[in-house]
Amino acid sequence: MQGRYLTARPPAQGEILELITYNQQEYEHLDNLSLADLLAEIKPDRVNWLNVDGLTDNEIVAGIQQHFNLHSLLIEDVLEDQRPKAEEYDDYLFFTLKMVHSIKAGYIDYEQISFVLGHNFLISFQEKEGDLFDAFRNRIRLDQGRVRKKGADYLLYRLLDIITDNYYLVLDNVGERIERIEDELSEGITNDFTFQRIQRLRKELIYLRKAVYPVRDALSKLVKDDSPFIEPETTRFYADVYDHVVHLIDSLDTYKDLTTSLLDIHVNTRNNQLNQIMKVLTIISTIFIPLTFIVGIYGMNFKYMPELDWKWGYPAVMLIMFVLALGMLVYFKLKKWF
Amino acid sequence: MQGRYLTARPPAQGEILELITYNQQEYEHLDNLSLADLLAEIKPDRVNWLNVDGLTDNEIVAGIQQHFNLHSLLIEDVLEDQRPKAEEYDDYLFFTLKMVHSIKAGYIDYEQISFVLGHNFLISFQEKEGDLFDAFRNRIRLDQGRVRKKGADYLLYRLLDIITDNYYLVLDNVGERIERIEDELSEGITNDFTFQRIQRLRKELIYLRKAVYPVRDALSKLVKDDSPFIEPETTRFYADVYDHVVHLIDSLDTYKDLTTSLLDIHVNTRNNQLNQIMKVLTIISTIFIPLTFIVGIYGMNFKYMPELDWKWGYPAVMLIMFVLALGMLVYFKLKKWF
Amino acid sequence: MQGRYLTARPPAQGEILELITYNQQEYEHLDNLSLADLLAEIKPDRVNWLNVDGLTDNEIVAGIQQHFNLHSLLIEDVLEDQRPKAEEYDDYLFFTLKMVHSIKAGYIDYEQISFVLGHNFLISFQEKEGDLFDAFRNRIRLDQGRVRKKGADYLLYRLLDIITDNYYLVLDNVGERIERIEDELSEGITNDFTFQRIQRLRKELIYLRKAVYPVRDALSKLVKDDSPFIEPETTRFYADVYDHVVHLIDSLDTYKDLTTSLLDIHVNTRNNQLNQIMKVLTIISTIFIPLTFIVGIYGMNFKYMPELDWKWGYPAVMLIMFVLALGMLVYFKLKKWF
Amino acid sequence: MQGRYLTARPPAQGEILELITYNQQEYEHLDNLSLADLLAEIKPDRVNWLNVDGLTDNEIVAGIQQHFNLHSLLIEDVLEDQRPKAEEYDDYLFFTLKMVHSIKAGYIDYEQISFVLGHNFLISFQEKEGDLFDAFRNRIRLDQGRVRKKGADYLLYRLLDIITDNYYLVLDNVGERIERIEDELSEGITNDFTFQRIQRLRKELIYLRKAVYPVRDALSKLVKDDSPFIEPETTRFYADVYDHVVHLIDSLDTYKDLTTSLLDIHVNTRNNQLNQIMKVLTIISTIFIPLTFIVGIYGMNFKYMPELDWKWGYPAVMLIMFVLALGMLVYFKLKKWF
Amino acid sequence: MQGRYLTARPPAQGEILELITYNQQEYEHLDNLSLADLLAEIKPDRVNWLNVDGLTDNEIVAGIQQHFNLHSLLIEDVLEDQRPKAEEYDDYLFFTLKMVHSIKAGYIDYEQISFVLGHNFLISFQEKEGDLFDAFRNRIRLDQGRVRKKGADYLLYRLLDIITDNYYLVLDNVGERIERIEDELSEGITNDFTFQRIQRLRKELIYLRKAVYPVRDALSKLVKDDSPFIEPETTRFYADVYDHVVHLIDSLDTYKDLTTSLLDIHVNTRNNQLNQIMKVLTIISTIFIPLTFIVGIYGMNFKYMPELDWKWGYPAVMLIMFVLALGMLVYFKLKKWF
Repeated sequence: MQGRYLTARPPAQGEILELITYNQQEYEHLDNLSLADLLAEIKPDRVNWLNVDGLTDNEIVAGIQQHFNLHSLLIEDVLEDQRPKAEEYDDYLFFTLKMVHSIKAGYIDYEQISFVLGHNFLISFQEKEGDLFDAFRNRIRLDQGRVRKKGADYLLYRLLDIITDNYYLVLDNVGERIERIEDELSEGITNDFTFQRIQRLRKELIYLRKAVYPVRDALSKLVKDDSPFIEPETTRFYADVYDHVVHLIDSLDTYKDLTTSLLDIHVNTRNNQLNQIMKVLTIISTIFIPLTFIVGIYGMNFKYMPELDWKWGYPAVMLIMFVLALGMLVYFKLKKWF
Repeated sequence: MQGRYLTARPPAQGEILELITYNQQEYEHLDNLSLADLLAEIKPDRVNWLNVDGLTDNEIVAGIQQHFNLHSLLIEDVLEDQRPKAEEYDDYLFFTLKMVHSIKAGYIDYEQISFVLGHNFLISFQEKEGDLFDAFRNRIRLDQGRVRKKGADYLLYRLLDIITDNYYLVLDNVGERIERIEDELSEGITNDFTFQRIQRLRKELIYLRKAVYPVRDALSKLVKDDSPFIEPETTRFYADVYDHVVHLIDSLDTYKDLTTSLLDIHVNTRNNQLNQIMKVLTIISTIFIPLTFIVGIYGMNFKYMPELDWKWGYPAVMLIMFVLALGMLVYFKLKKWF
Repeated sequence: MQGRYLTARPPAQGEILELITYNQQEYEHLDNLSLADLLAEIKPDRVNWLNVDGLTDNEIVAGIQQHFNLHSLLIEDVLEDQRPKAEEYDDYLFFTLKMVHSIKAGYIDYEQISFVLGHNFLISFQEKEGDLFDAFRNRIRLDQGRVRKKGADYLLYRLLDIITDNYYLVLDNVGERIERIEDELSEGITNDFTFQRIQRLRKELIYLRKAVYPVRDALSKLVKDDSPFIEPETTRFYADVYDHVVHLIDSLDTYKDLTTSLLDIHVNTRNNQLNQIMKVLTIISTIFIPLTFIVGIYGMNFKYMPELDWKWGYPAVMLIMFVLALGMLVYFKLKKWF
Repeated sequence: MQGRYLTARPPAQGEILELITYNQQEYEHLDNLSLADLLAEIKPDRVNWLNVDGLTDNEIVAGIQQHFNLHSLLIEDVLEDQRPKAEEYDDYLFFTLKMVHSIKAGYIDYEQISFVLGHNFLISFQEKEGDLFDAFRNRIRLDQGRVRKKGADYLLYRLLDIITDNYYLVLDNVGERIERIEDELSEGITNDFTFQRIQRLRKELIYLRKAVYPVRDALSKLVKDDSPFIEPETTRFYADVYDHVVHLIDSLDTYKDLTTSLLDIHVNTRNNQLNQIMKVLTIISTIFIPLTFIVGIYGMNFKYMPELDWKWGYPAVMLIMFVLALGMLVYFKLKKWF
Repeated sequence: MQGRYLTARPPAQGEILELITYNQQEYEHLDNLSLADLLAEIKPDRVNWLNVDGLTDNEIVAGIQQHFNLHSLLIEDVLEDQRPKAEEYDDYLFFTLKMVHSIKAGYIDYEQISFVLGHNFLISFQEKEGDLFDAFRNRIRLDQGRVRKKGADYLLYRLLDIITDNYYLVLDNVGERIERIEDELSEGITNDFTFQRIQRLRKELIYLRKAVYPVRDALSKLVKDDSPFIEPETTRFYADVYDHVVHLIDSLDTYKDLTTSLLDIHVNTRNNQLNQIMKVLTIISTIFIPLTFIVGIYGMNFKYMPELDWKWGYPAVMLIMFVLALGMLVYFKLKKWF
């Protein structure tokens, strides 16, 4: 499923402004226009989706603020790093959350996306260019199906659904990496790199958790509070996204437990490796140290050492030492010391 | 109790469709029919249980959706991996959860089962073929007892009861394995395999927890919300299943604590083994290293070393060394170093 | 306080059925009668306590079920292992919990006890023969005091009070054992057996926790829900048992923390012991290895080694080595390495 | 602040009974009287504070019970070890909690103190003689200020305030000890005694936690439930004590975290010390073992060993060994092995 | 962003009293006046901000208490160390919290700041001189914008916003330090100083947590309780500060997890370093100990040792030993022991 929605548009410079207006019969997509021209195209009898990519040009944001009469706090929330939340104002609903922007070699890049939902319009503010919605834009254009029949609240639901679905890509990625490390560990393979990978997994789960947990609360607020901006029959769809997010959180917690478990296995395997080595080396020393003592005895220069004059002294000592070494080896083996 | 309900039906290919209709007087079991034929057999004055095994043929699902006017989100929930939940729609109640499919050599296989409960019908969707309900199907057929007297809500209760009872099999399995490992550990036996088995236990408890926890919330919702699809007198039965699930969760937590405890014992035993070995080996070295020094002294080639010329020099040194070695052994023993 | 209520009756075979009926004036205790005869003795104007010990004879249970019109789920709950709970039915209140049956050498044996409380009767079902209530039975018989003045709800309160009081015996037992281990550890004494005892403590606390936690919830339900089977003035007594159980749980948690602390101390003491040994042994090796090198030098067979011919060569080397060894010892001591 | 309220009265034997009655104009302190005489002195138009120290004489308790018509459960709660709680009866409010009795060398001694608050009286039951209230008694006597203007509910507030303030003494004591250990550890000083002190800290925090946590719940109940025994304007004072207790709990948790941190530092410092020693010792061995091998070579007795006959053989070998040893030392140093 | 608001005013001695009064048209800043003179300047038709720096002169506090009729408990709360909280009185709202005073070399200095908000006045009490508000004071003076249009409640919001924004400075500081340590650790660099820095991070997070957590509860109370001192349209601003604090807490928890992770990496790196050293050293010993045994053999003084007389004996033994050493090295390398 990886990459399902991750078809990024070609990178461009500066902000991108685009307006999609539609109802069941008509569909219009406007691009490369100035803000004033775009705002003039908004049609009260259609759903109007105004999308802003790359939040650098504050004049455009100011223009939108003025036209839609947006609260100054809302604009602050759009421009600064925010905790995901839903907030109801008199004339619109505000929703901000984090969106997965890209997954590259295990590094997940998030961006903040904010929505303002009015009765016939939806404004979306994205931090970076390129998004997950191109496939969905096509579907609106071509398809005369459900999206075109419904209002802006349903449009927001679809976008939230796409965003939360993409969290699953991260989770799948994490899951695959956990499995790969598990396979390696089950074969007794582990090293510093394994440890670093596990730590990176933990870190990504910490960040994902930070991005996803507040979304649950925000959605729960929407579902329970009967917002005037969401039609009663659309509420069930929001409830479904809510269920997905709760499922995500469950999976996150499961992965967190599995990662902790991985770390335990890593440490255990590591210790076993080291202990194995130290044991073998120590056993070698232990066998040779007494032998060295014995040869030391017969290296003494006492005048009266009768064994030294015996003809079979040398082979006898060698034999004794061989037997001793063998005996110790057998004993250690029987005791299962190596 | 192991295997009580685990009497799997012979494996077949493709989907299985079956319809059981009954009231107090009549009972009918229809199989091997097309969906349209089956749907025509549904009788408004009886309880109709439509069961779908193996969710591969989307046309069948689509047909059922159309006939019962099921919500598109519900169908999505049936087809995709879901968090266990209960959801009420206008014309029916939706319940999805995980069911133990098989326990083989400590690996537990779950499948998702979803129910749609209407006033006179129950639809069950299973992922895989073969289920836990054959014994129960027989009981409905033969027995004119309570099941046949009651409605579809009671039928769903019985199926949920069978499913949760099967979780106990997993728990029993886990419990037995914990006990076996405990017995081994109490005899001081432990190795890498012990560690792997404990880790596997932890993993299974993590998955079981993920499967069971949300069921508690879903059932609690049913019991407290007075659903119109559950008769007041049947609610008590749902409350009983709820109690079982809470009991399960208690036991799960207990087992989790016991497994943590096992891991502690394993690590402790492991360390003791290693320390024992290292201590003995180090003691051997420690005794022989000073002795080797002594024999080294008398291996020196100084011209004027009076001891070398003494007649009893050699035996004297040997005796001294023997006494020294013995003294050290006794000292280490007294200090309880081995 | 140990053994206060643990005066077990002589063991007998099969089930024991007994009926105690009383009011302020009269008291009757019936034993060794058939169920039918006993049930005939139930008097509507008295408090009737029907006690069943040893749940083996299902006919008796079935007879009681029929006579008191007990729900089938209730009977299942009586016969199977249950999570402690309180449940209200139309005509009676059901309460099931675990009771300490015996404490032997640190092994605690629990049994399940279930109560059915009606307006003028109390049925108690016990798993095993012998109980904690004999002293209390005597008090009812002899004493014309408060128990005889009050109803069946007060009787149930007294029994619950006795049962929860007995949990304190377990807690006292655990507390004493914790203290004993603490004393040993504070003197630096620890070994594998200490570790096993701490693990056993942890295990018992896990089980006790499993038995006691749900009782809190069950009692809280009784106290808050104004059950029709409990008189308003008796509610305060149930609130008192509830307070005791909460106190128990507090103490349990405290003991759990203390046990964790014990384990830390054990591990620390263990490590210290081992480190002490390894350090001393390593120091011995470290002193003798350089000395052995020195004597090795003068064991070389070079022709031109002037020292070998010196008259004071041998004693000089011996002196140097002595000074060296002493110097190292002093240095290690100053550095506090042993 | 240490000792602010810890001015214990001289120890006496048996129970102490005392009655303080006051209103804005009058103040009376009665001592050394029999219970009956004291009870006769209670004046309905004043605040009457009856204090009982040392709960040994059950007749006195029984007399008080009868006079004030106290519930039997309340008396049980006074006499037995209780979890801190507040309980409202028809004619009075019951409050029991733990009070710091003394802090000696880091050992904290608690006693149970219980209060019965009526509309114009307050009874206090203390386990041991000597209390924290002497300074406060003086203030009532001398001062015509706020206490004398207000009722028994304000009197109880003042006593609770004194008791909770004394918990801060314990906390200060713990805080100072944490800091002292921290200072030692930051200088790298640690030993078994450090470990024992940290463990003692943990234990005291466990006990303090057990004493303080339930007080929060009890006070919260008083503040929220609008007890008829507490005047509306006094409620704010109880809320203030509640805030203090919550602050205490925050500090407790902070100290708990700091203690855990201390333990980590201790273990780390310990390990470093040991590793330092082992490393240095091992390095010494590692340098001398190859050298010993070299001198061993020239101790061999082969006939044809040309080096042995060289004039500069001996100094050459000595030089080589010196260079080798130095080289190894430098290498180890460069690798930062010591 | 560091230092944004940390422009401390020049230190002065004693208390500082200052009064700022403004409305949309007028602005006045009074300094260096006696309390009585200042209080006389308070104007009912303006917003009056009375600021007290350095709480040493109790007469001033007493004067303010009398003039504004402040509750004695409130004054106690101002003067003593308090848990952050919001409390509503009849004529004013009390809010106390901790403010970052300075960040120096990783040591964060907090001070307590308390606010009393009335309908047209705000009193602020600070512990130390110098604050974060100078830039903001200028903005009020110069700017005729929003602040001057709004009431005292908005003024308090702005001050709270500045205070919570400054917590982010601490968090940024902590974040940077975490990253720096992470970078070092990823290059395998770690030592005692790393450990100390991680511990200091943990400690600062513990303190920050203690300062910030209660602010959340206090603000949540303000937002939900519809305080009469906060205008409905200002409530949204307080909600925004509340969101910031929740975001702060999220980040705190994330940093706590990262710090734990750092500690794990430190310990792992440490152990690896040590193990690496011990392994290499042990391998050296293990290679030379058998060799020393071999040379010991040919150092024995037996008369009949044929090898000693062989011409090529010496070089043969040297060769054998070389091959042996090489073989062991290769074997250890193949086994990946170093």
